Amino acid sequence: MVAAIVSASKIKVLATPTSQAWVDQAIANLDTILLDHAQCERKAAGTAIQMMSRYPSSEKLVTALIAIAQEELSHYEQVNWWLTKRGIPLQPVSPPPYGAGLKKLVRRDEPNRMLDLLLVSALIEARSHERLGLIAKHCPDRELGQFYQSLMASEARHYGIYWLLATTYFDTALVNERLTELAEQESELLQTLHPEPRVHS
Amino acid sequence: MVAAIVSASKIKVLATPTSQAWVDQAIANLDTILLDHAQCERKAAGTAIQMMSRYPSSEKLVTALIAIAQEELSHYEQVNWWLTKRGIPLQPVSPPPYGAGLKKLVRRDEPNRMLDLLLVSALIEARSHERLGLIAKHCPDRELGQFYQSLMASEARHYGIYWLLATTYFDTALVNERLTELAEQESELLQTLHPEPRVHS
Repeated sequence: MVAAIVSASKIKVLATPTSQAWVDQAIANLDTILLDHAQCERKAAGTAIQMMSRYPSSEKLVTALIAIAQEELSHYEQVNWWLTKRGIPLQPVSPPPYGAGLKKLVRRDEPNRMLDLLLVSALIEARSHERLGLIAKHCPDRELGQFYQSLMASEARHYGIYWLLATTYFDTALVNERLTELAEQESELLQTLHPEPRVHS
Repeated sequence: MVAAIVSASKIKVLATPTSQAWVDQAIANLDTILLDHAQCERKAAGTAIQMMSRYPSSEKLVTALIAIAQEELSHYEQVNWWLTKRGIPLQPVSPPPYGAGLKKLVRRDEPNRMLDLLLVSALIEARSHERLGLIAKHCPDRELGQFYQSLMASEARHYGIYWLLATTYFDTALVNERLTELAEQESELLQTLHPEPRVHS
């Protein structure tokens, strides 16, 4: 299982890499990125719980998502700690169009919905892995950079778990075919840089 | 803080104690109670996350609810373990009218909504504390009874945390006045035993 997750995490799933324009925007607005990142972690925990509520009989899914939700909550707490350390009051920021755009791609009929929900979560984790890695690399605050470096591994692992769950409930060829389709659309959603700095702008 | 929580947990908040009829119904249907209990823990985690999402700037609330959500998820996992041990496949059961009934009591205007949400959660935890204690006391399976005994303390602590959060953001006299009102209504919701065995039937 662990080997499979590691292997899954190496899959080059993202159709297009993040632009330098996003890196410049993020590094110039780290405080806003931190506020948005806190929200992303909280939302990821909420999404995992929603998925367990939708598929409460799917034991492997439930077990894996409990662990993911707990880890996302722990990251939310850590990002809030960083906000406090930098003297930034906790506050909401408006979400970029990315999440709503991805939600529209989820088919409404089962079992397609389950497959799409798992793969959309997988893609969000894969993109977060890439972008948190870019922050880690370019962050002028070395300690904050190290924090982002430490989160990267979790995002890759979560990507691997969502992908593995998809292959637990669906044929692997079907999973990879749909993943390729969704990955193209995920990259399109990020093609034009959102004017407000966000993790997924 | 810890002393305050312990003290808060001793408040006799419930307007009416649980009937013997509920105890008889629950003990005669432990497997269904376990299935419903699993859902209750998952829902409690989801409710805590919803509350953080609604009040993301309220630092003390966010910090306390992250810990509660993580603990509810851990209990969800433990109840699922018990279901598996007893050979009961994970499956959804229809919710009793209790949750929807409590939701109707929450006022829509802020800051009343925040106060009511905290106090409704406090009451659910207080009732769960009482009922899990009754299961612990009357359960014919000694090991399962011990498990329920072990959960009781958490429920009492969660009640205390929700009450303390309410007094963090609202005047204590106002909190206790509203809590008394809501506790009366909570007891009314449970006055007629729901025909299907549930934690809050």
